[in-house]
Parts: sequence; structure tokens; C-alpha cells
Amino acid sequence: MRRSSKKTAAGSVRNPDRTRSRILAAAVAEFAAKGQAGARVDAIARRAGTNKRMLYHYFADKEGLYRAVLREKITERRVQFEDAPGEPSENLPFRFDLMCSDQEWIRLLGWEALENQGGQVQEESFRRQGLARALERLRGHQVAGRLTTEHDRRHLLLAKIALTMFPVAFPNLTRLVTGRTVRDPKFRRAYRSFLKKFATSFRPARPSGQPHPDRP
Amino acid sequence: MRRSSKKTAAGSVRNPDRTRSRILAAAVAEFAAKGQAGARVDAIARRAGTNKRMLYHYFADKEGLYRAVLREKITERRVQFEDAPGEPSENLPFRFDLMCSDQEWIRLLGWEALENQGGQVQEESFRRQGLARALERLRGHQVAGRLTTEHDRRHLLLAKIALTMFPVAFPNLTRLVTGRTVRDPKFRRAYRSFLKKFATSFRPARPSGQPHPDRP
Repeated sequence: MRRSSKKTAAGSVRNPDRTRSRILAAAVAEFAAKGQAGARVDAIARRAGTNKRMLYHYFADKEGLYRAVLREKITERRVQFEDAPGEPSENLPFRFDLMCSDQEWIRLLGWEALENQGGQVQEESFRRQGLARALERLRGHQVAGRLTTEHDRRHLLLAKIALTMFPVAFPNLTRLVTGRTVRDPKFRRAYRSFLKKFATSFRPARPSGQPHPDRP
Repeated sequence: MRRSSKKTAAGSVRNPDRTRSRILAAAVAEFAAKGQAGARVDAIARRAGTNKRMLYHYFADKEGLYRAVLREKITERRVQFEDAPGEPSENLPFRFDLMCSDQEWIRLLGWEALENQGGQVQEESFRRQGLARALERLRGHQVAGRLTTEHDRRHLLLAKIALTMFPVAFPNLTRLVTGRTVRDPKFRRAYRSFLKKFATSFRPARPSGQPHPDRP
């Protein structure tokens, strides 16, 4: 039996995988714009050029769709991080580029922070696994002498995420502080260079015999 | 003429200043919980133990009230920052403590980031002034040899805000990464110590003759 892919009257294409991914893309946009509570299933169906019946067929309900969006985006990020350079002076700019390239994802996390206070988040264990892998990679970088062992890896990871995600998550504050928006290529270049230089903070300690300036 | 301050039937106190500040406090809570769009003026009046008529008397409308909240909170922060220690190893923990002590304010900024994309924000010039003063203080710290001159002050300020505000702004991510919530005293102590040590990154460069490890 051959899969038909001819256009329907509504202009949508009869291909289950394509319909599913069109719905997912539309859902990312809607959840990023309005959050989980504010998102409307019929707006998502409309954006995807399909109908609510099809959407419920694939994802059961709005929560099911939200969970599918999270899994999709997190899987995408994991693949991207497989190629992340370990050297901090490359790693921080790499992370910043990723944050800039997916502002919808950062907005989605922003909504989650406001809508879900405490308690478990959606796809909790799947997300924990991903972060455990990230911490494992950091351990590898420490063993290889690329990353400082002076700090707890969890704090190092949190600091890396903070430094690279914050300007995208708080574009107004960033503009008020720097005078430029996070969409401005000049800001991106300048902040990227800053991160590259600032990354020495994540490097292993200087050769022994050279004390820290603030430790007498 | 003596200001009366006897209780009304509704239990509110007839004192204009107290009514005004009760409305402001209720508004901070409501805006922090629901954002500017989601906040309801009658819920704020109810929380403040007053009525909409009084609220409109003091603040004209919801936007006027929101602007008053911003000015109030920003003024409060400015006063707190007047006493901020300049030494990075004290400054970063000090900032982190402030962020932890006012999670409503951080939520309010989170809503603003999502609700207002680009363009001017409310109280734009008032806020610019405050940040200009912060940059001026950073210049003082550089002159006094407490803060590195290797980076643009605007990026240093952004990095300081990012490192100290992020765990409060993204409590779920923080919990997923560290295993502890930002309300957990153990996390606070540990992250505070991390910041104290990590602050060496903001100190002036090591004595000359000692090259950076990543600069051959």
C-alpha cells in the first residue's frame, strides 16, 4: 500500500509524519508566544493547516502536545551538544550561539519558570537524564585538563547556562545594560568575544606557585 | 487638620499613605503571580483591602499602577545597592542574596521579558539612569583596582546579573541541574560559596609576566 501524499482541499498534505511535525512546529510557536496556559489548541491546529481532530489523534490533549514539544526540543539540543567543543573559550560562544538560534525554546523555558513553581516539571526524568549526560561530559573535560576542578561541576554547568542564556531570556535587561538588543549582530559579536575571553575563568587553575590575587 | 486613621467598616485604615502602600504591595504580588496582562485590578484592590475607586484615585489605571510598582521596586534596589561591597568576592554573594530575598521582583522581570518583546519598556529612562549609575560604580571599582579592566563594563555587569539572578529566574532548571531548589538553604549556601570563589574571574589580571593559560 503506497502512502498517498496528495493535497487535500485545505491545502494540507496527507502524510502522517509531515502532519505530525507541522503540528509540533506550530505548537512550539504557540507555546513560546503564550505559555502552556495561554496556548490554544485550535490556534495550533490552524497554524499547522490541520484540525483539532487530527491534533488530538496524534497527541491526545494539550498536555500531551506540550510534552511532545519538550521531548522534540530537548532531543534536538542533545544532538547539537554532542558536537560541543570542550575548550571553555569555544564552549561558551558555542552555547551562546545555540541560545540565540532558538529564542522560541528559551521563551518556552521562561514560561515554564513562571507557570510551574516548584514540584515536578513535565518530562522530568527525561530532562534529568540529559543534564546528567552534560555533567558527565564536564567530568571528561576536567579529566582532560580543559575545565577547572576548583568548583562543583553542577555549579559550573549552571554558570555556563546562566552566562549564555541570560541575554536571550532577558532581552529588555540586556538592552538596558548594553544599549543593544540581543538580535543586534553587533551585540552578538561583542558578547561572543567577551565570553571567549571570560572563559579563562573555567580553565584549570594557573600553575602552582602563583597564588590567587585575593588569597594572601 | 489632623489625619484620621480610624478603621473603616471594611477593616482598612483611613490613611492615604498606608492605603497607597498597601495597594502597591498587593500589586507587586499580583503582577508577580500573573504578569501585567493577567493581573486583575479588582484582585489587587481586594488584596489591599480597598476598592477599585481608591486604586484609580491613586494610580489612574492598571498601567499607572504597574509603572508605580516598577519605580517603587527600582528605588528600593538602588538604595540596597548603595551599600554593595565592591570586592567581587563579596559583591557576587551580596547580589545573589538580594535576588533570593525578592523573588517577586525577579518574577516580575520574567513576565516583562515574555510580555514585552523589543521596543521601550515601562519607565525606560528611569531604569537606564539606574543602570548608568551601576556602570559608574563599576568604573570606580576598576580605578580602585578591585575589578578587571580586561572586559567591557557593560558585559561585566550583564555577567554579574546573569550569574546571580539566573537561579532565581529559572528555579526549575536550577533544580534539574543541581538537584536542589533555589529555596533550599543548602543550595543557597553552596552557590554562594561558589560565587565567592568564582569571583576571582572579576578580579584584575594576575601580575604581568604570568601569561593566560590559553594564550601561548
